[in-house]
Amino acid sequence: MTPFIAEILGTGLLILLGGGVVANVSLNKAIGQNSGWIVITTGWALAVFVGVVVAGPYSGAHLNPAVTIALAIAGKFQWADVPTYLGGEFLGAMLGSTLVYMMYKDHFDATEDGGAKRAVFCTAPAIPNVTRNLISEILGTFVLIICVFYFTGAEISDASGTKVGLGSIGAIPVSFVVWAIGLSLGGTTGYAINPARDLGPRIMHAILPIKGKTDGGWGYAWIPVVGPIIGGAIAAYLFLALS
Amino acid sequence: MTPFIAEILGTGLLILLGGGVVANVSLNKAIGQNSGWIVITTGWALAVFVGVVVAGPYSGAHLNPAVTIALAIAGKFQWADVPTYLGGEFLGAMLGSTLVYMMYKDHFDATEDGGAKRAVFCTAPAIPNVTRNLISEILGTFVLIICVFYFTGAEISDASGTKVGLGSIGAIPVSFVVWAIGLSLGGTTGYAINPARDLGPRIMHAILPIKGKTDGGWGYAWIPVVGPIIGGAIAAYLFLALS
Amino acid sequence: MTPFIAEILGTGLLILLGGGVVANVSLNKAIGQNSGWIVITTGWALAVFVGVVVAGPYSGAHLNPAVTIALAIAGKFQWADVPTYLGGEFLGAMLGSTLVYMMYKDHFDATEDGGAKRAVFCTAPAIPNVTRNLISEILGTFVLIICVFYFTGAEISDASGTKVGLGSIGAIPVSFVVWAIGLSLGGTTGYAINPARDLGPRIMHAILPIKGKTDGGWGYAWIPVVGPIIGGAIAAYLFLALS
Amino acid sequence: MTPFIAEILGTGLLILLGGGVVANVSLNKAIGQNSGWIVITTGWALAVFVGVVVAGPYSGAHLNPAVTIALAIAGKFQWADVPTYLGGEFLGAMLGSTLVYMMYKDHFDATEDGGAKRAVFCTAPAIPNVTRNLISEILGTFVLIICVFYFTGAEISDASGTKVGLGSIGAIPVSFVVWAIGLSLGGTTGYAINPARDLGPRIMHAILPIKGKTDGGWGYAWIPVVGPIIGGAIAAYLFLALS
Repeated sequence: MTPFIAEILGTGLLILLGGGVVANVSLNKAIGQNSGWIVITTGWALAVFVGVVVAGPYSGAHLNPAVTIALAIAGKFQWADVPTYLGGEFLGAMLGSTLVYMMYKDHFDATEDGGAKRAVFCTAPAIPNVTRNLISEILGTFVLIICVFYFTGAEISDASGTKVGLGSIGAIPVSFVVWAIGLSLGGTTGYAINPARDLGPRIMHAILPIKGKTDGGWGYAWIPVVGPIIGGAIAAYLFLALS
Repeated sequence: MTPFIAEILGTGLLILLGGGVVANVSLNKAIGQNSGWIVITTGWALAVFVGVVVAGPYSGAHLNPAVTIALAIAGKFQWADVPTYLGGEFLGAMLGSTLVYMMYKDHFDATEDGGAKRAVFCTAPAIPNVTRNLISEILGTFVLIICVFYFTGAEISDASGTKVGLGSIGAIPVSFVVWAIGLSLGGTTGYAINPARDLGPRIMHAILPIKGKTDGGWGYAWIPVVGPIIGGAIAAYLFLALS
Repeated sequence: MTPFIAEILGTGLLILLGGGVVANVSLNKAIGQNSGWIVITTGWALAVFVGVVVAGPYSGAHLNPAVTIALAIAGKFQWADVPTYLGGEFLGAMLGSTLVYMMYKDHFDATEDGGAKRAVFCTAPAIPNVTRNLISEILGTFVLIICVFYFTGAEISDASGTKVGLGSIGAIPVSFVVWAIGLSLGGTTGYAINPARDLGPRIMHAILPIKGKTDGGWGYAWIPVVGPIIGGAIAAYLFLALS
Repeated sequence: MTPFIAEILGTGLLILLGGGVVANVSLNKAIGQNSGWIVITTGWALAVFVGVVVAGPYSGAHLNPAVTIALAIAGKFQWADVPTYLGGEFLGAMLGSTLVYMMYKDHFDATEDGGAKRAVFCTAPAIPNVTRNLISEILGTFVLIICVFYFTGAEISDASGTKVGLGSIGAIPVSFVVWAIGLSLGGTTGYAINPARDLGPRIMHAILPIKGKTDGGWGYAWIPVVGPIIGGAIAAYLFLALS
């Protein structure tokens, strides 16, 4: 699997599962309707787990342009590879949200509230306020990416002295960090913390023939793109400053 | 323990615990009644954990005909062994659901709603629609089995260079994937994602002398059998194509 | 730390935390009042985690007479050491429940319902029925102890070939199994699955000067003692038969 | 990263996420409002996870004066380094709570209840009672710190015989212990179990220009400082007595 395919597949799984949990909690007649914030946040955390399990060994499982760019800023990822990764992340996110729509279509049709339908695709602020909403996305992404920089794998080495990993178990820490961010910092803007996670599905919301859909929230759309990139960059510069 | 016994025991534990959590949440006077989707999905995820802990070292803990068939398609399991595994899986599922009934019988008797009683055994769609329900079961199982193909164990080797495992901790990733599927993709059909998990207990629902039981939902029964097999096969072919 | 002290300390922590979560969910004015079955079951699962982390390296962290006796039946524990372990388990359980009372006393006083107060100490069946309640406790404990027999540690060896452990992380599997049992099999009798966990605190409920306490439920008290021992014994004999 | 910086950064992340989850559950219009005790306790547990992931390799991630002092009492930490660690812990806690306020400011403004606003910063007892509240904080912190003393890492050694760690996975046990304490022992005083976690943000609550804020609860403020130090000291002396 090439890194490009891995980013598509991993981000596709992330958004299929992440969008799916919002559909399950928000849409009418879904079995998990109104099951609350613990379901939403656990679902997104485990969506990351699944994406990282599959893509991790092939692309490092960025699954998020803010991660890709922050790693490049910190000198841990080639700038030349950034466009390929970003392309895979956006394609995966668009694919994943399309699958959510295909799967939950009858529940979309059974739901009146256009805002609930759009929430399956992309985020919206609880209280619109450009500065505060930006701060939210910056802080949430900062927490994610400072952890990415300070994650350590097992220090176990094989006979030749090469460090070896823990396999799929190694996807737990990033999943727990995303769980933490959702529970704690998701209350204001719904924690996009990932430009591809928000903009890719927002584009699909515009394209797909969803009955009774509301506007695309395009006035807000730049915040979950710019905020996460800034938050990741701050984490990268702090990491460099502390190294 | 032979693989056949291991599949019976592992699938039996899976269905005892998985059916048990539905009984606890759905049936009257059960202590966990109405405790919600987080309880249902965490219960099923941990049911998988228990089944894998016990059966893993002896049969690889398929516990699911869709897993067995997908592994055979991908050349990772002998077709000749498929019937034995499928037999163990169905026997285990029937045994497990019988134990749930024995244990929760007074609560079955205290419950009027035949649909709630049947839900302890097998799934039913929130909105019946053959195509969409099939898509749901295909997608859910695809996620499960693409992860099965890409799971990696610890890369630790012993002195002789043989790779060694992490023991029971190694059952966590599959449990987390099933948790993810339930939270996110369970909202439409209740995520059977396993022909034995659905058909075995459905047969027991027909056989057992449950008071006030409703019909067996037999018109729907083929979907949670065929959908998971298709979903697993797609995962197998994608895995082969990407190898 | 001697095994006797370890069993006291480990079981004490188990019951302090396990009784504590019931107090928090059941008693008036407690901050977690009415927070539901997910809180109860997660609390008990993590109570086991804490007890095993502390006692594990010193006594093997049985924390449960059903475990001690089942291991002895299977030839994995000296019968001569059984009385010491049982003594430690009962003492720890009595100590732990006393600490819960000391800590939550004002909330006990603020609670009218004698049943809610007793539930902090010991279990009661949702629907009294000697046979079915016994089956519940047998099945729950069977699941716990069959897992205990089939848990495997990491297969990692050090330079001398000695198998080494994963440390405190190794307490996760038993914690997850108890979580599973609570979620799925706790709906009928409240999953004592441990004679010391139920009888020890029931004795303290009788002794402590709790205002407005109800009867001790002594007619039921033998079931969460005998059921778990039977369930553990069945697991032990099945383990021997399959070895 | 120096230990001082690590304690600031780690405690800052702890309080940003811990205060954040209270803000999300307590403040008006927050997306997670009223999502309950499972969200609060999981949020704080994972807040500890994040803090330990980042600070662990640089300072040992005390993040809590009660931990620092208990380790010093037990001879596992230099008394000479205590002031530096305490300074970092308090600075981090003050910084973290300031970030919570910056992020959730519009939700603070949308909330009438001064008690709910203060709860984002610091704890208050459900039933005020000096002795019992002290016992609560002593017991909760005792559980935390007895676990800290008995945590064991993986026993894996590299070729030279040096013990090696499991990396970020190694932060799970302390996170699970804090989860346990919150679920079980948080019902009386809200489990500060950490002087810096309570007093640092309480000071910021006094300083920050929060609209419609209530009093600082200063009459209670000494209990979540003194109680945790006593609880940690008891754990340290017990550990020494049992060694």
